[in-house]
Amino acid sequence: MDKSLLGNKVITQIGLLVNDIDQTSQKYADFFGVEKPAWFWTDTADIAQTEYRGERSEARAKLAFFDMGSLQLELIEPDHNPSTWRESLDQNGEGFHHIAFVVDGMKEKIALLEAKGMPLLQKGEYTGGRYAYIDSYSELKMLVELLENDK
Amino acid sequence: MDKSLLGNKVITQIGLLVNDIDQTSQKYADFFGVEKPAWFWTDTADIAQTEYRGERSEARAKLAFFDMGSLQLELIEPDHNPSTWRESLDQNGEGFHHIAFVVDGMKEKIALLEAKGMPLLQKGEYTGGRYAYIDSYSELKMLVELLENDK
Repeated sequence: MDKSLLGNKVITQIGLLVNDIDQTSQKYADFFGVEKPAWFWTDTADIAQTEYRGERSEARAKLAFFDMGSLQLELIEPDHNPSTWRESLDQNGEGFHHIAFVVDGMKEKIALLEAKGMPLLQKGEYTGGRYAYIDSYSELKMLVELLENDK
Repeated sequence: MDKSLLGNKVITQIGLLVNDIDQTSQKYADFFGVEKPAWFWTDTADIAQTEYRGERSEARAKLAFFDMGSLQLELIEPDHNPSTWRESLDQNGEGFHHIAFVVDGMKEKIALLEAKGMPLLQKGEYTGGRYAYIDSYSELKMLVELLENDK
């Protein structure tokens, strides 16, 4: 029986903040020996309904993905609106941002983590699902992202 | 055919620096719903033959591992001797340290990465194999660790 808080312990994604998604995507493409993936903008605020620290934000980011077996590497180049991406990039520079887990029941999982001292930091919608970044740093020393995909 | 620099693109491990390995291991054990793993010291310098920035170092660290499918989470609490662990913990605080790949032919892989602008940062031996941390930050925005296990 799985006793994990999230219902699984599969790290499905590592998120990486970058200043120039074209440049760093090319470096990873060379490193992995694959084609450079096309980046795309996250949805506009009317679709994404982004909330950061409890307030609506216009924040968007360029995303590019490398799929390596069960694990995905996500490159993130944020715009200048308020977001965990922009805050972390400004404060810590380029580099690691989060690990992600796929969950069922986003609201219940967010409430469960809040009760364990890991509050919601940012959330939003994307085509086919939704995400939530959890401020799990004090407990786990990394940010955790929850991903829920529509069935 | 695999065209990657390392011969594979499987991220096998995420390394995390912590100040108190007992405390953070317990947090992850609760999060994943598993028993807290026992930590252990890396080998003494006579066995580990640790080199950091080209010089021998007495550095050791407490390590604890969580295995989640193909990916392993490594918690690292370094001692106060010079190492990439101690330097990163002092400069950046607790949190993400590296991603790791298993390789064949450690020397050749280190030379290949050096030629691509990613120099060796630290290396050492452990029972059954050896590791090398590569200063890949300028290229990949993360440190890469190579792991070679004896056959």
